[in-house]
Amino acid sequence: MSAAPLSEAKSNTPFYIATGREVEAFQAAYNSCLPVMLQGPTGCGKTRLVEYMAHRFGVPLYTVSCHEDMTASDLLGRYVLVDGNTEWVDGPLTKAVRDGGICYLDEIVEARQDATVAIHSLTDHRRELFLERKGGEVLRASKDFSLVVSYNPGYQSVLKDLKTSTRQRMVAIELGFPEPDIEEKILIESGVEADSAVALVRLGAVIRRGSITGLREVASTRTLIAAGKLMAHGLSFKEAATLAIAGPLTDDIELRAGLEALIDTYQPA
Amino acid sequence: MSAAPLSEAKSNTPFYIATGREVEAFQAAYNSCLPVMLQGPTGCGKTRLVEYMAHRFGVPLYTVSCHEDMTASDLLGRYVLVDGNTEWVDGPLTKAVRDGGICYLDEIVEARQDATVAIHSLTDHRRELFLERKGGEVLRASKDFSLVVSYNPGYQSVLKDLKTSTRQRMVAIELGFPEPDIEEKILIESGVEADSAVALVRLGAVIRRGSITGLREVASTRTLIAAGKLMAHGLSFKEAATLAIAGPLTDDIELRAGLEALIDTYQPA
Amino acid sequence: MSAAPLSEAKSNTPFYIATGREVEAFQAAYNSCLPVMLQGPTGCGKTRLVEYMAHRFGVPLYTVSCHEDMTASDLLGRYVLVDGNTEWVDGPLTKAVRDGGICYLDEIVEARQDATVAIHSLTDHRRELFLERKGGEVLRASKDFSLVVSYNPGYQSVLKDLKTSTRQRMVAIELGFPEPDIEEKILIESGVEADSAVALVRLGAVIRRGSITGLREVASTRTLIAAGKLMAHGLSFKEAATLAIAGPLTDDIELRAGLEALIDTYQPA
Amino acid sequence: MSAAPLSEAKSNTPFYIATGREVEAFQAAYNSCLPVMLQGPTGCGKTRLVEYMAHRFGVPLYTVSCHEDMTASDLLGRYVLVDGNTEWVDGPLTKAVRDGGICYLDEIVEARQDATVAIHSLTDHRRELFLERKGGEVLRASKDFSLVVSYNPGYQSVLKDLKTSTRQRMVAIELGFPEPDIEEKILIESGVEADSAVALVRLGAVIRRGSITGLREVASTRTLIAAGKLMAHGLSFKEAATLAIAGPLTDDIELRAGLEALIDTYQPA
Amino acid sequence: MSAAPLSEAKSNTPFYIATGREVEAFQAAYNSCLPVMLQGPTGCGKTRLVEYMAHRFGVPLYTVSCHEDMTASDLLGRYVLVDGNTEWVDGPLTKAVRDGGICYLDEIVEARQDATVAIHSLTDHRRELFLERKGGEVLRASKDFSLVVSYNPGYQSVLKDLKTSTRQRMVAIELGFPEPDIEEKILIESGVEADSAVALVRLGAVIRRGSITGLREVASTRTLIAAGKLMAHGLSFKEAATLAIAGPLTDDIELRAGLEALIDTYQPA
Amino acid sequence: MSAAPLSEAKSNTPFYIATGREVEAFQAAYNSCLPVMLQGPTGCGKTRLVEYMAHRFGVPLYTVSCHEDMTASDLLGRYVLVDGNTEWVDGPLTKAVRDGGICYLDEIVEARQDATVAIHSLTDHRRELFLERKGGEVLRASKDFSLVVSYNPGYQSVLKDLKTSTRQRMVAIELGFPEPDIEEKILIESGVEADSAVALVRLGAVIRRGSITGLREVASTRTLIAAGKLMAHGLSFKEAATLAIAGPLTDDIELRAGLEALIDTYQPA
Repeated sequence: MSAAPLSEAKSNTPFYIATGREVEAFQAAYNSCLPVMLQGPTGCGKTRLVEYMAHRFGVPLYTVSCHEDMTASDLLGRYVLVDGNTEWVDGPLTKAVRDGGICYLDEIVEARQDATVAIHSLTDHRRELFLERKGGEVLRASKDFSLVVSYNPGYQSVLKDLKTSTRQRMVAIELGFPEPDIEEKILIESGVEADSAVALVRLGAVIRRGSITGLREVASTRTLIAAGKLMAHGLSFKEAATLAIAGPLTDDIELRAGLEALIDTYQPA
Repeated sequence: MSAAPLSEAKSNTPFYIATGREVEAFQAAYNSCLPVMLQGPTGCGKTRLVEYMAHRFGVPLYTVSCHEDMTASDLLGRYVLVDGNTEWVDGPLTKAVRDGGICYLDEIVEARQDATVAIHSLTDHRRELFLERKGGEVLRASKDFSLVVSYNPGYQSVLKDLKTSTRQRMVAIELGFPEPDIEEKILIESGVEADSAVALVRLGAVIRRGSITGLREVASTRTLIAAGKLMAHGLSFKEAATLAIAGPLTDDIELRAGLEALIDTYQPA
Repeated sequence: MSAAPLSEAKSNTPFYIATGREVEAFQAAYNSCLPVMLQGPTGCGKTRLVEYMAHRFGVPLYTVSCHEDMTASDLLGRYVLVDGNTEWVDGPLTKAVRDGGICYLDEIVEARQDATVAIHSLTDHRRELFLERKGGEVLRASKDFSLVVSYNPGYQSVLKDLKTSTRQRMVAIELGFPEPDIEEKILIESGVEADSAVALVRLGAVIRRGSITGLREVASTRTLIAAGKLMAHGLSFKEAATLAIAGPLTDDIELRAGLEALIDTYQPA
Repeated sequence: MSAAPLSEAKSNTPFYIATGREVEAFQAAYNSCLPVMLQGPTGCGKTRLVEYMAHRFGVPLYTVSCHEDMTASDLLGRYVLVDGNTEWVDGPLTKAVRDGGICYLDEIVEARQDATVAIHSLTDHRRELFLERKGGEVLRASKDFSLVVSYNPGYQSVLKDLKTSTRQRMVAIELGFPEPDIEEKILIESGVEADSAVALVRLGAVIRRGSITGLREVASTRTLIAAGKLMAHGLSFKEAATLAIAGPLTDDIELRAGLEALIDTYQPA
Repeated sequence: MSAAPLSEAKSNTPFYIATGREVEAFQAAYNSCLPVMLQGPTGCGKTRLVEYMAHRFGVPLYTVSCHEDMTASDLLGRYVLVDGNTEWVDGPLTKAVRDGGICYLDEIVEARQDATVAIHSLTDHRRELFLERKGGEVLRASKDFSLVVSYNPGYQSVLKDLKTSTRQRMVAIELGFPEPDIEEKILIESGVEADSAVALVRLGAVIRRGSITGLREVASTRTLIAAGKLMAHGLSFKEAATLAIAGPLTDDIELRAGLEALIDTYQPA
Repeated sequence: MSAAPLSEAKSNTPFYIATGREVEAFQAAYNSCLPVMLQGPTGCGKTRLVEYMAHRFGVPLYTVSCHEDMTASDLLGRYVLVDGNTEWVDGPLTKAVRDGGICYLDEIVEARQDATVAIHSLTDHRRELFLERKGGEVLRASKDFSLVVSYNPGYQSVLKDLKTSTRQRMVAIELGFPEPDIEEKILIESGVEADSAVALVRLGAVIRRGSITGLREVASTRTLIAAGKLMAHGLSFKEAATLAIAGPLTDDIELRAGLEALIDTYQPA
């Protein structure tokens, strides 16, 4: 992903500023009826991108945060007892397949394997969903249906890796953190004052350049926004950055001291 | 599998171009009432072969994507509560046994062992299905019933190996990737433009020859089709191949760089 | 097991040709009201022997393929909801105990331990079945009841070993592969042509003599029959033996090459 | 346990010949309202002793074969759905506590821990059973109630050890194999012919003396009886001992050869 | 715990002879509304102390033997189906909180973690119980409510340790075995004859002094009482001590021989 | 956290004395609609701070003690059977989101992962709660909703670590033990006499300075209060401190001896 960033700000459109060619790639995958695998660090804007694209396509968005107890039934639907009878209730994936829409499976590798496997027939030439538990009903996906998953490889343990047979069914779109000028705009748009935004983006950039060795993750745009909001509610740069950036990033005493020294260095005059 | 490839293109027939003698082998197993074990890499066309054969035999196809939470009940059927009573609902295997048809268990080793064992009596001289939970009902398989499983040995962990007592009940048919001229036809048939198809098949062939050491899987025909579709929707060869081939194949930085260099080398003039 | 094989071929009698004194041993155990533990390699005819003996005794046969999710309830029975009440439904073991018959537990070590323990009181001087979940009902086994289990020691992992306190309750009958002349008869009886039968039995014998080191299992009579059937439906000896014998036996490239060389050597002129 | 064996053979009394002072010890524990822990090898007569003592005390016997899926509910009772209501059904332990009788928990360490813990309040000065799931009902044990468990320490894995806090609540009675003259009587009483009994008891004794190193268990009285019954139904000493003693004791080829050599040596002239 | 033992023997009062200042400590914790953690070896009288204190306070006692399948619902209560509706039934902890009384959780570390966590809000300044599954009902504990747990640190595995955040909510009262003169009184009170009591207490003391190295636990007062009762029912000192002390303490042959030698040495003249 | 402590003692206000700037930080996070992660040792006052802030904001407080069996349904709600129909009952998180209020998840890492993931959409710009099991209902959080979690990093095992993607959504507020003069006030406010308070705070301080190496946790304010209460009910300093501080802190004999020596040293004259 590189080249000219895309910015759209029509009224009602969810706020999103592109950091590369992710919007064009997403659009081409959608037009090709191919599922999308989003990759990128925590808090870089994956959820916002999906919200933005759903609005652009004019389709509903069904977001599912995957977890280790999530089974296929949570996606497909299940029987519920009504007046002594069992009645089928569609899950979010089934709804999106039936009526059109984006089904976004956030952190898909966390889900149980039956949930991952349930999407296989939707992600090849068949574009079909099998509801085995509903008497074997087969749904052919509407043209407006799109499947999007997020997946962070370095972030997961070796035990939780997406199967290569699943990955080969996806178009892989990578997102990174925005360039400084774009990130400043994002902070200001989120309610951070301009001066704070400049200082916080500088602090974020130095942390991301790896000046503190050993951090499991760097400061996301989300943490910069949080610090900025705390400043808008009366806390100092130092206190806000400590509470919203240093604290969430690490409990290690030495790493913490390093971060606090950086905060001292980068606080606005 | 070798020798003259078989191509059938009657109207309504699912699109399938044989890469060896898999169609004859499948037909002989079907005529002998023997179950089939399909082997071959991700995305080489196992699902399409089964669809094609089901159409050729004029029987319905029941596809089940196996997973680690799948139990015998998902195959055989279960009781559902209706008006305060429990009512039996056939599973896909039971339907195929009762009415004739192919039951295709995709990636059978993923299923729980009770599901694997449930097929044993169907795969020897008995050709019977025991519905123990349905009062011990015994179904004798219709002549049109055929059981097909897919299984990729190298692909599975040692913990998930098909028992030899199960394997010895099957006829093993191996599929590989198609020869270049056939693969080009398949891409064009799937909506890829002719020029793109030639370039993508060349790229796929060099990846499959093992020029990048360390990849867990090579580029399947499916990924080449995906890249071709993205090109048809306006992306460049380089961007399409990166999104649909390099990204899905690996997250490793060095392997990724190797793939991108290959993409640069093989992009059409 | 040695000495004169026994062959019975009355009309309606299931097809079985004895390979030793297994029929006499089974008969004596049945007359002594002792349970039987069948041992022997995959596909050597254990199921057929039990079918044959059940017909000989004139009693029904209840076959249960054991698996790791099988619990005592699958053998004994369970309550099912009917019109808002729970109603007891006998399992296959309970049926055989109540009405007489052979209950055959195939690969008993695969079952959960509660299933194995449920048979203890049936296999000593008590010959009783406790239905604890059915209000403590105690069934005394009919004189015609017989319990048969199959168990392959080398085949199981150390974690799945039959407890010695269970084994000491059984009469152990061992089965092997039949002698060549008998196996030829079995193949011909199963629909294989005479010439194919001779060649396939020779191939099976050389594989069983251990000419390929490293195979987890050798070629069973069942795989020879499968290859013979494929030949009857038009495939060559080489193609049939590859599909039905070499493929099912191994995925290892070297072992596979060894098997294919043997197939070349032993193909009929 | 030593001294004069006790033999009782009144009509209707279950057949039991004491091998030591186990009957007196059991009687004293019963009179003292103390629970009993029976120890001894497979097939030495633990079940028969409990049956005999229950008859002697004139109380019913509730036998429970413990297993790893057995929970407290299997002992105490559970709610069952009747006409839309839940109705409590006593388990075997609750029945014995309420109405008097011996509750015999065979191989108690196999049970889940909640089952083991459920007996604690029954085995100290309280002699009470708490039915927590039945609204906290507390049952005081009838004077005729006795709890008996069997437990073989060497036989279990380290993971399945009876807690010392449970053991200290029991009177430990150890059983061994009977002396030759007593074992002959037992075999004859069980339907074995006198000559066979003498030969089989001699064979059993030599195996128990440890002449075959490496056997996990020695030949129990039960296996000698089984071999004797097979002889009574027409099999030779050699065939019967192989089927009922050597086969059940081991699958190891060398140990098996050793046992068969012993059988040859000890076969009657 | 040291100083003058406390003995109370009013009619109806449960029998308890204090071995230290445990009664005063318990009383002060009760008056301070602080929960109590009882520590001490198997069979030293923890249950009897709690029974005694409940009687002294004039409140009911709810005893729960914890185990690894015990969940919060077993303590708090659950819904039961009555006439097609779900009806809430209080668990023992909820009853004690609502109506006053001691809830005694025996071997609390055995319980599942949700059960341990359920008591947290009861054991700090809040003294409240949250019934989340009952629509979030909050019960404020009655002044008469007291929570008591038992916990033996050396006895548990490292995996089953009480969390320090739980421990810091408790007053820790330690119990030991009684002094010889007190233990003799306890034995006599329990129905042991005076002569037997003297001999058994001497035997117990020498075992507790560690004369047999390797025993996992020493002889509790409970085992001495059991041996004394067997003597009262006609067994000799040697036989009774072997059955009730040596057998329950160990299965190890050498440790057993050592114990039997001690029994010989300490048997009364 | 440092600077001037905040003390509020209006009538009805829960008792809380600030130890740093935690109240201001909490207020700014609340005004910024950012979730709060509280960190600090056992018994330092986390629960009291949340109670105090809820009262200050004038909103209800929903406290949930997390544990390893807690699932998303315990937070979100579930269907309960009423008159044969299933009826939805809101969980504590759903109630707080719907009606406003603080939802406090105590020791959140103990909860199952689906519970942790359920809060993700509440903790970013969306502030929405998905009730997937309730037909996909989406709740937008009221302005008064605030999510607070507690988390002690050093305290948890490596297996139970809060995901960095969850942490980056929180404002991290750290609490420590209060300074001596403040802690004395807290003890006196809790009913401890002034002299005892001085002595106990001195004892607590020396333990916290690490004079006993190897303790897993130091003495919390809570244990000091407990010891003070026992003294108010008649126990000596030494006995009270042993029961409420030394006993709960360790079972190790040497550490225990060290603590008792400290207690001797620091007992008031």
